[in-house]
Amino acid sequence: MELDWLLAPPLPDAMPRQRVIYHRLRDAILSGRLAPGTRLPASRSLAASLKIARNTVLFAYEQLLAEGCLQADRQGTRVAPLPVRPSATPTRRAVAARPQQLSGRAAAALQPEPLREASALPFAPGVPDYGAFPFRNWRACLERAWREAGWRQLGYAAHGGDPELRAAVAGHLTTVRGLPVDACQVVITSGTQAAVDLCARLLADHGDTVWTENPGYLAARVACALAGLRVHDVAVDGEGLSPSDDDWRRHPPRLIMITPSHQYPTGCVMSLPRRLALLERARACHAWIVEDDYDSEFRRAGPAPPALFGLQPDAPVVYVGTFSKTLYPGLRLGYLVLPHAIASDFARAATQATRAGQGIEQRALADFMQRGYYTAHLRRMRTHYAARQLALRTALAEAFGPHTVLSGGEAGLHLVMWLPSHLHDAGVAARAATLGLGVRALGSYARAPLTCNGLVLGYGNMQEGMMAESMRRLVEAVRAPD
Amino acid sequence: MELDWLLAPPLPDAMPRQRVIYHRLRDAILSGRLAPGTRLPASRSLAASLKIARNTVLFAYEQLLAEGCLQADRQGTRVAPLPVRPSATPTRRAVAARPQQLSGRAAAALQPEPLREASALPFAPGVPDYGAFPFRNWRACLERAWREAGWRQLGYAAHGGDPELRAAVAGHLTTVRGLPVDACQVVITSGTQAAVDLCARLLADHGDTVWTENPGYLAARVACALAGLRVHDVAVDGEGLSPSDDDWRRHPPRLIMITPSHQYPTGCVMSLPRRLALLERARACHAWIVEDDYDSEFRRAGPAPPALFGLQPDAPVVYVGTFSKTLYPGLRLGYLVLPHAIASDFARAATQATRAGQGIEQRALADFMQRGYYTAHLRRMRTHYAARQLALRTALAEAFGPHTVLSGGEAGLHLVMWLPSHLHDAGVAARAATLGLGVRALGSYARAPLTCNGLVLGYGNMQEGMMAESMRRLVEAVRAPD
Repeated sequence: MELDWLLAPPLPDAMPRQRVIYHRLRDAILSGRLAPGTRLPASRSLAASLKIARNTVLFAYEQLLAEGCLQADRQGTRVAPLPVRPSATPTRRAVAARPQQLSGRAAAALQPEPLREASALPFAPGVPDYGAFPFRNWRACLERAWREAGWRQLGYAAHGGDPELRAAVAGHLTTVRGLPVDACQVVITSGTQAAVDLCARLLADHGDTVWTENPGYLAARVACALAGLRVHDVAVDGEGLSPSDDDWRRHPPRLIMITPSHQYPTGCVMSLPRRLALLERARACHAWIVEDDYDSEFRRAGPAPPALFGLQPDAPVVYVGTFSKTLYPGLRLGYLVLPHAIASDFARAATQATRAGQGIEQRALADFMQRGYYTAHLRRMRTHYAARQLALRTALAEAFGPHTVLSGGEAGLHLVMWLPSHLHDAGVAARAATLGLGVRALGSYARAPLTCNGLVLGYGNMQEGMMAESMRRLVEAVRAPD
Repeated sequence: MELDWLLAPPLPDAMPRQRVIYHRLRDAILSGRLAPGTRLPASRSLAASLKIARNTVLFAYEQLLAEGCLQADRQGTRVAPLPVRPSATPTRRAVAARPQQLSGRAAAALQPEPLREASALPFAPGVPDYGAFPFRNWRACLERAWREAGWRQLGYAAHGGDPELRAAVAGHLTTVRGLPVDACQVVITSGTQAAVDLCARLLADHGDTVWTENPGYLAARVACALAGLRVHDVAVDGEGLSPSDDDWRRHPPRLIMITPSHQYPTGCVMSLPRRLALLERARACHAWIVEDDYDSEFRRAGPAPPALFGLQPDAPVVYVGTFSKTLYPGLRLGYLVLPHAIASDFARAATQATRAGQGIEQRALADFMQRGYYTAHLRRMRTHYAARQLALRTALAEAFGPHTVLSGGEAGLHLVMWLPSHLHDAGVAARAATLGLGVRALGSYARAPLTCNGLVLGYGNMQEGMMAESMRRLVEAVRAPD
């Protein structure tokens, strides 16, 4: 039998010859080119004919014997009787005729999205100032966590997360946010997207309606669609989510996803009457409100508006927070705060649903908060971002005139600049991208029939020295003909 | 007006008095105890009557003014006209009458589950030897990653994960597992549960049928149920998943979740004819096979059985791997390998679905693999775990006699000891738990009508000095009357 092809070129780089022989023999067997029952030469004679060591052949034979591709008997080695695919190696055509596909719902997650590389660019929204991150203190906390790490930190996380971190979050929310929270109500998550995803699955069933803000946070829509929920867009006005009677009557929600303290992306703050009315009607239709308080930490001035979560003792509200903006997104730690009535069950179900971990990072973060580093960092960044926002406002007024309409900015890391109707935000953003800017079109957060026309301008990561040049390019993008 | 109750005891610990006043005033306003329009005393006179600084009162007033709970006019400060809840503060009874609940599908995630604390106990399955973890090398890699960290590591992860880690995983699978994998086919996940969850949502739609192994990995069932899939249990025999014609005809699957190289928990290896037949029929009904190769790394002896993923060039297979067992579970890093046809779309959709991060850890792991530490660690642990398994086998034979039926152990970190019918595994496991052992009942992995009777005995974290005493307790648990 002619087996020279076992080592015929081209040979794959960096693969030992014994594995080349193994792979080629196996392919030949599985494709039917070597028919069941075919006798193979003895290892010694094959080695001689291929001019290689006998052990090299033996390795391949033994592996194929172990796998059941070959059989050994007194007469030697032969191809095992396998259910061979009828048409030998499948052709490209055969593959194309039956395309392998993602699920139908995956389409929701494949909507166009700016390249993530944009997150390093000037004006990219939602990006904190990495340079101002307190690396030394944070790494010292990580060091300590590693030194003291035991199986609790190296294994899966406890229900709800590291107990010390849950307590630190509860303490922080109580003192800084004025929310009466117990540690047992806190569930540590791997960020806001994970939190929204958990709420979509653990608080709503397939086919239930979820309200999302329009314009709003796109990733919340994706999580809800993937969880099988019917996404109903509800308009946002200057006072926040503004559901009509028709919304309540024809699309009664099971979940209501909102960003009341600084609506994303418009930046409006939900008024207190609107909050109370929303709570009242949510109660009446047994809906859960998921309150994403994603950047209440960086308020410019004055007290934060009260969270819906703490507004009434038995409010049907789940509170969502994250460390992505206050520390760094890649950390992937955030939290949910749940009403007592469901906190324990939610924590257990979340453990099963996600098998969380990151025990070292959780312990380091608890330490970081306990030592006061977190509050100090927030305080410092509040001033820091306020100065950056002021610089952006000043530069925008100089570049586009004092009557430029801006919104947002009471908190967070971005401003919205509304555009006059003769300019189109998508076109401006596309031109800006070619000029190396990460600005986003406001319209890209909106869904029909709503249209918005503006630019979302992040300033979190805008270094002082970059502002002039970035603004020059922005002007160029805005002024160019559409 | 009498407002002494604003600072009446009991006062919450560690809350500044200005916040106590703020909270109590707000509660009174929102509950209707202070009616809309009620005039409040001037800050100066309230401060005097409460014997506190005027600024303390001013703080509370200003916050409530900002929130819209109070209004100021020329005559002073009064309670704003708010839509007050009709029944003042809700009573406990009112809450109980309309219980706040999790979703129906959350029930799947609330099934009984042993306390996670069990994972530190002798015989707990799936626990690696934390003591043998190469802390020094790993932390040196983390150090380097931190030193070189830029926004790419601190921000959200790129599509599919860190490019260097994707390449390192592809290289590892090609050389060690014999799988022809390109980096662009690899999607970094936060572990096996996240990978299963992604497959359930991105490869199947609500109402689709998923096959899971019976007995099998419980968490896979949870992820599928939460994704709205119909979970159909398929029996496992000595050759792996053993679907009947009835299974194929009446419950045609869209997803097939299997652990073919070392079935969890029975430890059987799927035979090659069974693999080929499964591929053939999966193709015929356009199903995806999700191949969880969770512990193929710790094979005792002989070559690993070939992965289904690499068995045929266009196999409808998604390959799942994890670093939870080879490094540590809390790391929360694993990977999916996808056929070329869907790899790019899957990576994009996964990014939207999960907003992954952990860029520092991903880069450190890539470094750890590139330096050969990972392969060296696997090699060392293979010998190490083989010795532990042998010690367990020896101890079991001594304690229960040479005819004790064991299965599994060709790979992984546990053995199954089958029990005679007069013993009941659940009872034995419960008694063992009271004796401080983490042994699990085999039956707890099975679903009716299947019954299994045995003990799943982990040895990954069983230190040498613990074996004698642990075995003594196990004998006690087995010998006690049921």
